[in-house]
Amino acid sequence: MSRTKRVLASELGRHVGEQVTISGWLHRKRELKRITFGIIRDRTGLAQAVFTDGSLNVPEETVIQLTGVVRESSQAPGGAELVAPESARLSDPAEPPPFDLYRPAVTASLPTILDHAPTTLRHPSLRAGLKIAAASEAGFRAAMEASDFTEIHTPKIVQSATESGANVFAIDYFGQPAFLAQSPQFYKQAMVGVFERVYEVGPVFRAEPHDTGRHLAQYTSLDAEFGFITDHFDVMAVLRDTIAGMTEAVAARAGAEVELLGLTLPEVPAQIPYLHFAEAQELIASKAGWDPRGEPDLSPADERWLGDWAEREHGSDFLFVPGYPASKRPFYTHPEPGRPGFTNSFDLIFRGLELVTGGQRLHRYSDYLAALAARKEDPGPYASYLQVFSHGMPPHGGFAIGLERWTARLTGASNVRQVTAFPRDLHRLAP
Amino acid sequence: MSRTKRVLASELGRHVGEQVTISGWLHRKRELKRITFGIIRDRTGLAQAVFTDGSLNVPEETVIQLTGVVRESSQAPGGAELVAPESARLSDPAEPPPFDLYRPAVTASLPTILDHAPTTLRHPSLRAGLKIAAASEAGFRAAMEASDFTEIHTPKIVQSATESGANVFAIDYFGQPAFLAQSPQFYKQAMVGVFERVYEVGPVFRAEPHDTGRHLAQYTSLDAEFGFITDHFDVMAVLRDTIAGMTEAVAARAGAEVELLGLTLPEVPAQIPYLHFAEAQELIASKAGWDPRGEPDLSPADERWLGDWAEREHGSDFLFVPGYPASKRPFYTHPEPGRPGFTNSFDLIFRGLELVTGGQRLHRYSDYLAALAARKEDPGPYASYLQVFSHGMPPHGGFAIGLERWTARLTGASNVRQVTAFPRDLHRLAP
Repeated sequence: MSRTKRVLASELGRHVGEQVTISGWLHRKRELKRITFGIIRDRTGLAQAVFTDGSLNVPEETVIQLTGVVRESSQAPGGAELVAPESARLSDPAEPPPFDLYRPAVTASLPTILDHAPTTLRHPSLRAGLKIAAASEAGFRAAMEASDFTEIHTPKIVQSATESGANVFAIDYFGQPAFLAQSPQFYKQAMVGVFERVYEVGPVFRAEPHDTGRHLAQYTSLDAEFGFITDHFDVMAVLRDTIAGMTEAVAARAGAEVELLGLTLPEVPAQIPYLHFAEAQELIASKAGWDPRGEPDLSPADERWLGDWAEREHGSDFLFVPGYPASKRPFYTHPEPGRPGFTNSFDLIFRGLELVTGGQRLHRYSDYLAALAARKEDPGPYASYLQVFSHGMPPHGGFAIGLERWTARLTGASNVRQVTAFPRDLHRLAP
Repeated sequence: MSRTKRVLASELGRHVGEQVTISGWLHRKRELKRITFGIIRDRTGLAQAVFTDGSLNVPEETVIQLTGVVRESSQAPGGAELVAPESARLSDPAEPPPFDLYRPAVTASLPTILDHAPTTLRHPSLRAGLKIAAASEAGFRAAMEASDFTEIHTPKIVQSATESGANVFAIDYFGQPAFLAQSPQFYKQAMVGVFERVYEVGPVFRAEPHDTGRHLAQYTSLDAEFGFITDHFDVMAVLRDTIAGMTEAVAARAGAEVELLGLTLPEVPAQIPYLHFAEAQELIASKAGWDPRGEPDLSPADERWLGDWAEREHGSDFLFVPGYPASKRPFYTHPEPGRPGFTNSFDLIFRGLELVTGGQRLHRYSDYLAALAARKEDPGPYASYLQVFSHGMPPHGGFAIGLERWTARLTGASNVRQVTAFPRDLHRLAP
């Protein structure tokens, strides 16, 4: 067949009158009496071809290459179509997809979608979630780089469980027991000693026994940590800029996907409002009709109520809750000066759901020893962690954003699995 | 103490005559008869402070904050110094570092460096390697994004070993046997069906029983895969642009580190020269004084000789060797048309050492079944992989660059551990 340089679907309208080649998947075939429409899907979108000779006798998802002349067509995607093209098949599907990928709505159940992910993720609205995740991640990195953070990679195989003995995957490491890292917490703190400001994008692993829509056994953690802070309000300021950068990147890099899914992106206020944990509980007690005071954590109902409150009072999708009680925070959390039992740590609530946890950490060696002693924990397993602090560390803090959870909240997905390419959970190890 | 806005070490020369605060680690203390020099290290470099009152009575690596007036000083880094500052200690080291971090040369052995990595990586020349790695990675991503690749994340816990049963870490996955992924190969191929062009930066795991300077149990793989190629020469062209982008990013983002280490960055030719595997062996046989013909792979001596040849004949640090024999390549490798026993796969040799492997993959379902049958392998364990190809896949290919190996070659490090923050190997699981 004749062959010309490949033109992408999104470019077709710029080639009216020319002979071009388009390549992609046969997304949809519509056979009318005399003509057949073929809709081709490539990485940039959809393009239409019109066949008058019945030559498009292949099933959907066939990979094809079409060469023909472009003409204007107000009905076609991009305002142009390929007329009576010559076609070549690059490969044939051996079986039909588990559901029709060309229908606007996804008609399959979540288990079907996940079981057949390599195929079902081709559906434009499932693909869109992953594109939004990629854009978010690019925005995270751009925000970090703009503030002079350095990218790092840290071990995913560790000698001892990071935060607690529970929920870790055990691994046979050349005959020694080892674990998959639940977070890069200790390593990113150590690297503050090297670069002052560091970030990492990487997998973390939790042997979550809970089969919920919010938990995965592996997820992508966007981690930041930096030194020479005054307190956690400096961390909240960097997090605010990071979230703003992520949102801007989604608008800039995944605008078509935002439109396809009909999303309203949040506005990130220059100053995200905040409410101390204790004040948040007071407010709920006085206004919401229940009394959470004395609880060491916010319940999902508390978070929803606070999210509504922030929207109502401040017109904000976001609310910081600093001052979480120490009893629910890890031992390395910096206490709140002058307020025993509370800490310089925070949650960021986004549309009524906890999205990010962060805070200031202890930075003095003696404070670590005291904190472990107060919890009656043996410092032995932490020896290699404590080493970091015996050589001079600045006041520092950081945060971690779960990429899948962020993407789910942004897209309105009720289950993080809907925006994860190949999720891992209690029941799922394939594909 | 008085407090002003923090100024970074690199900015000091712009504040002559002003009162400023600098914060960082006491990198070095030099006590003369009447005055003491303190060199402060922060993320941007070194700054000098002069004390006339003996008040700098703290050890090196103390984290301090100094407030004073800046004056010009031709002897000081950046041409300026802080005079008789007030100082505040942010934290004290509990013990001295394992070697003097202020000496230009690293005087410790590799095991000492690695055992105390959180501290020893603060040494400017050890830190420099990691900064160059971060810059390389940014260059990789920029090159990928410029060519319309989408970033993905894929499972690191898998049901079956990716490429062979050997060298995999076993994991207890909620009571089921599972493995750590040796590469994202199958998943990145699957995602070509979704985005056409994808890349991933993430950890891969190899239970390497070899204790060499080139192998790690965990390393960072820069993976790319894309569809609608003609053959592996399209992959080589994208790899060339990627390597060029990485090199440019190192120059642009880690120029100070390149200078500190005294490196000569490679020039990446617009067309990297190539030599078919069989021709490379012929050339070695006729010119090098030994005869590698019939061997299914290139030996380290072959690679070194070919690296020298490329330098001599083409003035190139790089050489592509396409056409590797099928017997040493995985079953998904596309055969070379018209040349039985050879494949459309390649190695990229950089300064005499294999740096990248890549190639064209099979894309037809029937070809996969035939390839497995030819190797007498049961397709059963590959069921979830083969699923990808039963729904129409374009001709595609890709490559993987080991970040640590690249950085080691670029910096001249003889051992990849020298440019890995916290390496994992046969003997090392901490820190």
